[in-house]
Amino acid sequence: MRVVALAGGVGGAKLAAGLEAVLEPGELSVVINTADDFDLWGLRVCPDLDTMMYTLAGLANSETGWGIREESFDALAMISAYGEDAWFKLGDRDLATHVLRTQRLRAGKSLTEVTAALAGALGVRSSLLPMCDEPVATAVKTPEGLLEFQEYFVRRGQRDEVLGVELRGIGEARVPDGVASALTAADAIVFCPSNPIVSIGPILAVPGMREALVSFSAPKVAVSPIVGGKALKGPADEMMRTLGYEVSALGVAGMYEELATGFVIDRSDAEEGPEIETLGMRVLTTDAVMRDEDDRARLGREVLKLCSDLGAR
Amino acid sequence: MRVVALAGGVGGAKLAAGLEAVLEPGELSVVINTADDFDLWGLRVCPDLDTMMYTLAGLANSETGWGIREESFDALAMISAYGEDAWFKLGDRDLATHVLRTQRLRAGKSLTEVTAALAGALGVRSSLLPMCDEPVATAVKTPEGLLEFQEYFVRRGQRDEVLGVELRGIGEARVPDGVASALTAADAIVFCPSNPIVSIGPILAVPGMREALVSFSAPKVAVSPIVGGKALKGPADEMMRTLGYEVSALGVAGMYEELATGFVIDRSDAEEGPEIETLGMRVLTTDAVMRDEDDRARLGREVLKLCSDLGAR
Repeated sequence: MRVVALAGGVGGAKLAAGLEAVLEPGELSVVINTADDFDLWGLRVCPDLDTMMYTLAGLANSETGWGIREESFDALAMISAYGEDAWFKLGDRDLATHVLRTQRLRAGKSLTEVTAALAGALGVRSSLLPMCDEPVATAVKTPEGLLEFQEYFVRRGQRDEVLGVELRGIGEARVPDGVASALTAADAIVFCPSNPIVSIGPILAVPGMREALVSFSAPKVAVSPIVGGKALKGPADEMMRTLGYEVSALGVAGMYEELATGFVIDRSDAEEGPEIETLGMRVLTTDAVMRDEDDRARLGREVLKLCSDLGAR
Repeated sequence: MRVVALAGGVGGAKLAAGLEAVLEPGELSVVINTADDFDLWGLRVCPDLDTMMYTLAGLANSETGWGIREESFDALAMISAYGEDAWFKLGDRDLATHVLRTQRLRAGKSLTEVTAALAGALGVRSSLLPMCDEPVATAVKTPEGLLEFQEYFVRRGQRDEVLGVELRGIGEARVPDGVASALTAADAIVFCPSNPIVSIGPILAVPGMREALVSFSAPKVAVSPIVGGKALKGPADEMMRTLGYEVSALGVAGMYEELATGFVIDRSDAEEGPEIETLGMRVLTTDAVMRDEDDRARLGREVLKLCSDLGAR
C-alpha cells in the first residue's frame, strides 16, 4: 500500500516511523512542513524535515524529541564564546546537516533534491518531501507583536498568546512535482498527529495542495494530536483555544472536514466519536498515544487497517 | 614599542605569542597570510588567521600546531556519514569560527572587520590583520598539475614536488587601511619564521606591500624558518629546493635582501652569519627553535632587543 503522510515534527515523525515499520520499503512518502524553517548564523535550518529524517534514520533523541541522540554541543559553546546568543540548541552533528544543506541550496539544488540526498545518505528508506521548495516563514501574532516562529516556539518557550498566524511567501509556493506524483500514486493519505495550525496548516496552504487532497478519492485518515483536551506535545491546544477552535478531538476533526474520510481518536475521547462521525468520517477509537516503538508500529498498523477498511482506491 | 609582525601559520603564531608576551597590550599587530584561505562545504576557512587567533587566545592545540585543543570532531563524523570526503580535519569548535565568519562576510563585512570581532570576542589583545580583504588563492604547480594549496598541503600531505606557485587574485588585492596605518605607526617590523614562499611571499605580493616595507625606515628583523638546512615545520625546505633557492638560513636571508635590516639564525647555522651580514643585515645567533612558551617569550625578547639595537625609528 503506497501511503502519503502529511507531517510536522515530533508527533508526525513518530507515526511516520510506525507506518514505515509496517509498510514495505519505499511505500511511504512523507510531505513535511517547511514553514518553520529559518536561517541561523547563515545556515538554513529545517526543524521538521530534520526531526523526520533523524527519526527515520534511527538517530533521533527520543528524550527531547528533537535533535540527535548522544549529541555534543561544542560548536554552540564556541558560538557563545564569540558573543552570539545561543538560544537555539544546535548540536554538533545536527550542525553538519545545516552546513551541507546550506551549501547545496546555495549551489542551486532544490530543497527537495537536498533532502533526498541527505536522507538517502543516512539510510532513510521512505521519501521525505518538503511541502514546497520555495521559502515560507510562519509568523505568529501575539500581544507582544509579530514573532518569527522559532522566536515564539523555542526562544520564548511558547508562552505568548497566539492571536493569528501568517505564512509569509506561501503565495509563491507551489506543490513540488515529487509531491504531486506521490499523491497521484498513493493508495491512502494519512494526516499525522501534528499541530493542525502550524504544522499541517502550512502544508494545506500551499496553493493547489488542499484541492489535490480534497479531490483525492482513496482513503484519507487523520490522527488527532489532541487527547483528553490537551496537545500530546507542543502548543497546539493553547493555539487552538486562542484562535477560537474547540480544544478537543472533535475540534480537530472539524478542521479536517472535507479532507479526511477516517479519523483516529484516543480511548479517552471515545464519547466524541459519534459526533465526529456526523462530519462524514469513520472513527477509530484506540490508544493514540505513542510512548515507544511498539506503540508507533501498533498505531501505524491500525491506521493502515482503517485505510483498508475505508476501501483502497 | 609598536611592532608589526608578518606571519603565516604555526611558526608565525609561536613568535607572535612570544612578542605579545613581552610587549605591552595593544602594541603588537600581526599581518597574516590569507592566500591559503579556501571554501569548504560552503564555509570560508582561513587557516593562518585561525592558527594565529587560537594561539593568541590560548586555545591552540600545541601538539598538532593547528586547531583547538581538546577539540571534538562530531560534525565531521556526520559530514562523513553524509558521504562527503572528510579530508580536512574540521573540529566542532573550529567549525563555529567558520560558520560565523561566513555569515558575516556574506552580510557584507570585510575579512578585516570579521577577524577583529572574532579575535576580540576571544580576548586576543593584539590586532590580527588579514594581508588583504580580497580573496587570494595560492595554487601550486606540481608534476601532477596545478593543485589548490590545501589540496597540496593537507589532502596530499605535501608529497608533490613544487615547480611553481601562483597567487590567483593577487592583482586585485590591496593593502587594507588597517595594515597601512599599523605600518605607519610601527617602531619595528618582524618577519616571523614562516614559509617565505607560501606564507610571507603572498603578503609581500599584495600590490604596494613590498614597497611600503622597503621604504619603512625603522628596524626590520626576519627570523629564519630554516634551521640546520631543514624547515622547522612544513614543506618550506623542499619547496625552496625545487624552486632553486639554497636551503639554508643564508638562502632565506637572500630572499629578505632589501627588506630586512636584521636577521635571526639558530646557533647550528652560526657559520652562515658572516655571509648573511654581507647582505646588509645585522645577524643575531641564538636558539631559534621554540619548543615551549618560555622559548617563545625568550625569542620574542631577543628579537625586540635586536630591533632596539638597530635603532628605533
